[in-house]
Amino acid sequence: MLTLHGFDASNYVNMVKFALLEKGIPFEQATLYPAQEEPVLAVSPMGKVPVLQTDQGYLSEASVILEYLDDLDQGPALYPADPFQRARVKQLAKMVELYLELPARRCYPEVFFGGQVSEETKTQAREALLKGIRALRRTASFSPYLAGDQLSAADVVFLYSADLAKAVAGKLFGLDLLAEAPGSAELLERLNERDSAKQVAADRDAAMAKFLKYARGGK
Amino acid sequence: MLTLHGFDASNYVNMVKFALLEKGIPFEQATLYPAQEEPVLAVSPMGKVPVLQTDQGYLSEASVILEYLDDLDQGPALYPADPFQRARVKQLAKMVELYLELPARRCYPEVFFGGQVSEETKTQAREALLKGIRALRRTASFSPYLAGDQLSAADVVFLYSADLAKAVAGKLFGLDLLAEAPGSAELLERLNERDSAKQVAADRDAAMAKFLKYARGGK
Repeated sequence: MLTLHGFDASNYVNMVKFALLEKGIPFEQATLYPAQEEPVLAVSPMGKVPVLQTDQGYLSEASVILEYLDDLDQGPALYPADPFQRARVKQLAKMVELYLELPARRCYPEVFFGGQVSEETKTQAREALLKGIRALRRTASFSPYLAGDQLSAADVVFLYSADLAKAVAGKLFGLDLLAEAPGSAELLERLNERDSAKQVAADRDAAMAKFLKYARGGK
Repeated sequence: MLTLHGFDASNYVNMVKFALLEKGIPFEQATLYPAQEEPVLAVSPMGKVPVLQTDQGYLSEASVILEYLDDLDQGPALYPADPFQRARVKQLAKMVELYLELPARRCYPEVFFGGQVSEETKTQAREALLKGIRALRRTASFSPYLAGDQLSAADVVFLYSADLAKAVAGKLFGLDLLAEAPGSAELLERLNERDSAKQVAADRDAAMAKFLKYARGGK
């Protein structure tokens, strides 16, 4: 049995949880918050979540875990079999992570956790987010999914990154980020209507108050 | 025939070139510098290199291209067949990229291109590099390769990221970064002795003067 270590308010954890639910792979959850101390570092070298515990050991990095789950060949595939189409899905997923998620994340302390980030960080994040969403506009299909007619891992990363990037762009820069990529807001809605997404969202909402107390207290 | 678009002084281009050489896959090269204009954006949505041109279209992101090349099943595999071991290699490769390459890269303007970066960026980069190399120490085998007894894609990313991260840490912070992960300096030496690495290095050295002129002039 796989165990997903993390907490339900983490968007990266929820990428993995959504994939497990979509595939119908049985799993357990165990609460783990990011930390720079043992025993967290013993299972996650950067002290991050999610961590997937398997019979063979622990895995970190959501994108790595998503590919691992697909390699288990259980349930619907989230990557196409054709090498080129497979690579396109990976490219889209990576673009969402590197060019939307990561720049937005640098601003989370101010947008979500009652802290502040510097003007330099905001300037860089704003520029990066606009560049990222415009790159996505060029590359993604949005008809109906990011990579075309099949739900893929790129949609999973998008589902749990785009809403946060949108929130950062709206609150800090007064920008409607998803308007830069026509079809992307509709895709987000469509993905949120899936049963797996509804379950993940319900668990997230239930966990959020506890997490925010932890995150704000941790400063 | 595959065409690798980029320039020989780019470490990301060289990851792909090294993998093509190691696998013995025939390829052509075409010079392309990063840019935010057409026609570069038409083949690379972020305007970055490398770009791999295939019969089916263009691919970006070095890590995506490395996995694509493995999926072609030509030459020695750079990812193990077992799903868990495969995921461990991907995790290591991703750790090197996100936690060594990317923080170091934020400092390249000052270290390599005659520019300056802010104290905030330096403080963040120093902290991130130390965290990254310590995470790698916990996770990597270094006996003899990053993931154990076989050369893998994690070594490819390491080969073309660790030397630059080491240079940034040495020049800006007076830190011997690789000393934090015993075995890593020896691995870098060992990888640099491979015929593919020697060819890549010779081409890089020949291209460097032209690239530096371009990079410094582009400011």
